[in-house]
Amino acid sequence: MSTSAPPNATFSRESLEQVLKRRFFFAPAFEIYGGVSGLYDYGPPGCAFQANIVDTWRKHFILEEDMLEVDCTMLTPHEVLKTSGHVEKFADWMCKDLKTGEIFRADHLVEEVLESRLKGDKAARGIAVEAGEEDDDKKKRKKKVKEIKNIKLDDEVVAEYENILAQIDGFSGPQLGELIIKYEIHNPTTNGKLEPPVEFNLMFETAIGPSGNLKGYLRPETAQGQFLNFNKLLEFNNEKMPFASASIGKSFRNEIAPRAGLLRVREFLMAEIEHFVDPDDKSHAKFDQVKHIELSFLPKEVQESGSTELIKKSIGEAVATGLVDNETLGYFIARIYLFLIKIGVDVNRLRFRQHMSNEMAHYASDCWDAELQTSYGWIECVGCADRSAYDLTVHAARTNEKLVVRQPLAEPITIEQFEIEIAKKKFGPKFRKDAGAIEKWLLNRSQTELENFGKELSTAGKISVKIDGVEGETELDTDLIKIEKVKRTEHIREFTPNVIEPSFGIGRIIYSIFEHQFWSRPEDADRGVLSLPPLVAPTKVLLVPLSNSADLKPVVEKVSNFLRKQQIPFKVDDSSASIGKRYARNDELGTPFGITIDFESVKDESVTLRERDSTKQVRGTYEDIIAAIKNITYFGSSWNESTAKLTPFETQATDA
Amino acid sequence: MSTSAPPNATFSRESLEQVLKRRFFFAPAFEIYGGVSGLYDYGPPGCAFQANIVDTWRKHFILEEDMLEVDCTMLTPHEVLKTSGHVEKFADWMCKDLKTGEIFRADHLVEEVLESRLKGDKAARGIAVEAGEEDDDKKKRKKKVKEIKNIKLDDEVVAEYENILAQIDGFSGPQLGELIIKYEIHNPTTNGKLEPPVEFNLMFETAIGPSGNLKGYLRPETAQGQFLNFNKLLEFNNEKMPFASASIGKSFRNEIAPRAGLLRVREFLMAEIEHFVDPDDKSHAKFDQVKHIELSFLPKEVQESGSTELIKKSIGEAVATGLVDNETLGYFIARIYLFLIKIGVDVNRLRFRQHMSNEMAHYASDCWDAELQTSYGWIECVGCADRSAYDLTVHAARTNEKLVVRQPLAEPITIEQFEIEIAKKKFGPKFRKDAGAIEKWLLNRSQTELENFGKELSTAGKISVKIDGVEGETELDTDLIKIEKVKRTEHIREFTPNVIEPSFGIGRIIYSIFEHQFWSRPEDADRGVLSLPPLVAPTKVLLVPLSNSADLKPVVEKVSNFLRKQQIPFKVDDSSASIGKRYARNDELGTPFGITIDFESVKDESVTLRERDSTKQVRGTYEDIIAAIKNITYFGSSWNESTAKLTPFETQATDA
Repeated sequence: MSTSAPPNATFSRESLEQVLKRRFFFAPAFEIYGGVSGLYDYGPPGCAFQANIVDTWRKHFILEEDMLEVDCTMLTPHEVLKTSGHVEKFADWMCKDLKTGEIFRADHLVEEVLESRLKGDKAARGIAVEAGEEDDDKKKRKKKVKEIKNIKLDDEVVAEYENILAQIDGFSGPQLGELIIKYEIHNPTTNGKLEPPVEFNLMFETAIGPSGNLKGYLRPETAQGQFLNFNKLLEFNNEKMPFASASIGKSFRNEIAPRAGLLRVREFLMAEIEHFVDPDDKSHAKFDQVKHIELSFLPKEVQESGSTELIKKSIGEAVATGLVDNETLGYFIARIYLFLIKIGVDVNRLRFRQHMSNEMAHYASDCWDAELQTSYGWIECVGCADRSAYDLTVHAARTNEKLVVRQPLAEPITIEQFEIEIAKKKFGPKFRKDAGAIEKWLLNRSQTELENFGKELSTAGKISVKIDGVEGETELDTDLIKIEKVKRTEHIREFTPNVIEPSFGIGRIIYSIFEHQFWSRPEDADRGVLSLPPLVAPTKVLLVPLSNSADLKPVVEKVSNFLRKQQIPFKVDDSSASIGKRYARNDELGTPFGITIDFESVKDESVTLRERDSTKQVRGTYEDIIAAIKNITYFGSSWNESTAKLTPFETQATDA
Repeated sequence: MSTSAPPNATFSRESLEQVLKRRFFFAPAFEIYGGVSGLYDYGPPGCAFQANIVDTWRKHFILEEDMLEVDCTMLTPHEVLKTSGHVEKFADWMCKDLKTGEIFRADHLVEEVLESRLKGDKAARGIAVEAGEEDDDKKKRKKKVKEIKNIKLDDEVVAEYENILAQIDGFSGPQLGELIIKYEIHNPTTNGKLEPPVEFNLMFETAIGPSGNLKGYLRPETAQGQFLNFNKLLEFNNEKMPFASASIGKSFRNEIAPRAGLLRVREFLMAEIEHFVDPDDKSHAKFDQVKHIELSFLPKEVQESGSTELIKKSIGEAVATGLVDNETLGYFIARIYLFLIKIGVDVNRLRFRQHMSNEMAHYASDCWDAELQTSYGWIECVGCADRSAYDLTVHAARTNEKLVVRQPLAEPITIEQFEIEIAKKKFGPKFRKDAGAIEKWLLNRSQTELENFGKELSTAGKISVKIDGVEGETELDTDLIKIEKVKRTEHIREFTPNVIEPSFGIGRIIYSIFEHQFWSRPEDADRGVLSLPPLVAPTKVLLVPLSNSADLKPVVEKVSNFLRKQQIPFKVDDSSASIGKRYARNDELGTPFGITIDFESVKDESVTLRERDSTKQVRGTYEDIIAAIKNITYFGSSWNESTAKLTPFETQATDA
């Protein structure tokens, strides 16, 4: 059985969308109310496909690495997301057309306008449209730029445009504003002038509780819940490092103008891993198992030079040469690759793109996106970032809770440092309810701060500080605290772990797989086939009785019960449509196997098995046939291997 | 192996809570930020327990009945929830203390104050506290009423209070207001006066999109998404009736003052079924399979008479006598029962309570809650309502989309009715973009409306109507429409299905199971045991090497690989704690089986299997032992059956 769909030269997004809609893989949410852009519902096959992908993810990552799965709330108070930086920075740049009230996302607008001008230039120069771009006209139907004008550009301008497009993800809002002015980009429909880009925060805001005083947001990622539970997770893991937590759940993003179907939605399923690692040792025990894997890389230097040419090398080499920052990051990149291939991503349409310096969060030490090629272009589907110690550090600083690992040192070390001594007994009577907060705050001061406080104490006899959560200034004298430089032998090393974060957008992956696995048979161009891998296909088997005859019913029942007992998801199609029609319907649902029950079956319990992609057929007892299906679906066995002992079958009822 | 925990006379909520916290089953969300009441995170064992319950639910309901699972968005536009009635009616009554700013939920306040007065009365009369009430003081710690005053009440008043408490779920806001005045209920802490109850809508509100103009809510239930997709689901089901859809996902409820841990939260996992059925035929094909099942019922008449005495009878009898409205409702009540017992609910602490007339939604024809008894009282964990045709009807009326079933009639029938004839060709030119909406609206008019319009047309020659979504009045004359009474032979019956809705609050069920299955061994009262059924226990097996000796490592590895291959969730505990301590730790995690690996194991691959509840032990090869575990866990086999061929084992390393 083929592992990926036949060549896809004739791919039509319109046909795919019709199939996905007709078979209710998904549909716009609230459609009878006119719909809300960026919100989609999954119907039964979409829901089952999603559940199978999540199940595979859980086995591939959580079980394989013994990760600690958690389920945290989506509602998140303002304070948490302020600390994490989301209140300030989780934003896109938007431009308003004051005349029409239309709102555009600035980077998307620049990208689409420049792309359409390049296309118009090509047409004006009489250059044929490349294969794979044929679909572009249909693509534009959903885009802002409705019409492409065939105007030749200067060679210099073409080069500038191409350079900008290669780095489009790296521009700041003001830079986008400059591009909009420089290249005279207007509202594509009315040609009206646009206001300079302003930031729009993408979090959905709400109020928690009846008073309305506690501002909250719907989480933009599942990560924060994992960071906040760090101490509990470390304890649950018996203090052992490294370890990973994981979470699967919905997150939210109030997109400015979502248009690209499942690829840009306001509510989406994420699966995220936070792998906590010693900052001084980012090696990975299982890296050797994956180091031979060849991947396609798009490094930041290549993009910054204005190119998108891929570099192929093994992940082992990529880490050894410093292209990928460390082994743990490399290990996860390789594991992401293996996962995506397993669930149906076309290996030739997968690349790992490194974030450019101006695109990466300031705290991250390296970041790679797994991007999948679709008719909408290359789409970020998985992010894999080294977030360093950023998140744990900021939450610890804000809450005065230590989020650290303590490990016995092999050799004790001697250190000299400023230490603070607190007269605890005097704190309670003096500071009452604030005593705890003040103590915590003092214990979290840096060496430099302690040194300065020490000097002030010895000169002025007291210090006066402002502590978050404590009203007014807090005054501390030498009766209450002492600061001294001491030499001590340490037996324990204390450190804040770094975090490697693979983060999956399940909906985007699902849509990309649909595109990668959709094709039509040359003899039946009107009907589509979705070659979803058996492991993740929504339904594994279609049971097709040859006719409505009552004689066949007991066999259908018997085979159904057997499939149910084996927990293999199946459907019966006993409608009066022809066998060929029933199989065609099923090809659209991505069901990999069909079992035909005919009058022979009544005599000897033999049935015919049909494979979706090759339409090959074999004959055998239903028990042998179902054993073959099970081997292929769940144990990775090949068609030839699994059906070797079954009889090849020439079709009676043709597929036509 | 016992199917439920040993008698629970010594249950202590405080001990249970300590275990659940220590083992990170769940914890207050954002705890390092001080927490937000009503929001909880599930740690690894809680998350796995929840996943196993959801998996069991999916198999018990969705697979067994071939239900159509969907996954709909949580963000929901205002218009949808206005139509469903939630904007107006999804509210609780709250009372404010204007002096302190405190907000109380009115029904809970009345309930707790009257309960505490009854308790004080008992004490004053010198009546001993009943078994099971011993924990009440601890319970009160989380409640509003901190202190119970021992004051004797008149016998009459006691009777009044008891009567009110039996019907506490049935009072309206104004009625609660009257009770508060009549019984002089004040702020329990300050004795301050309370404002009369006002309604507070429990939906979280947000704005969708950058303009802020589209008001939305977080869904309060998963049901609406299923109703809105009714036509697509019916088509997917090849137009066959009856059928059910199902959905598992988070819903939200902005509780006024959540206090009862996992029982009252602001964000929670629901699993809901919408079973669509012919209103003229609510029989169920599989009712015979469950009709013998005995259940405990609390009918509405009993409650309305001020009693809470349970009636035991079979579901078959309950339906036959009209206690339960119909077979389909009865079928689901019995299936709910089977599900709850399977996952660890104590059958003696489960009752089905019928909604009282003044408590039930006006459209519902019957409604039963599966309630579980906990230290907080009887808690609604599953609702099972016949929602009649309400939801489909209101959404169809609002959107002008038909949400109906069309079935060929066995015998054609002749009907006489008003029909409208639309001159479609004239509609387009005259009404342009509104033509479709006007046509739809006309086709959705009732017989009475058509009769009236017909009269007006024949007298005035035209009608003038206001149509939602069409600007101004729409004028229609006899050139555009004709209305006539016609006699026709119908071959198709068209009807709006009724809906039976079983709706599960997974978090409440989880917490109740914790209470039902928590106990301590008499010889070790300080340590708890969570007797979670193997099927849903977070981890099935703990592997315990007798010592840290390197000789044991290869066997541990071998057994681990075997368990992994069999996909049985397990953990290794190779810490240096004693065997007894390691098993005790594990009892708290609810792990049903322990496998000890000792020096005999190295010689002959034999291991010891320990059962958590009985602490019985048997010896055999690891392959035989794991086969027994698999049979008990996944195939419902008993301990005695599964271990019959293994050797009983007298403990070397004692459990102490």
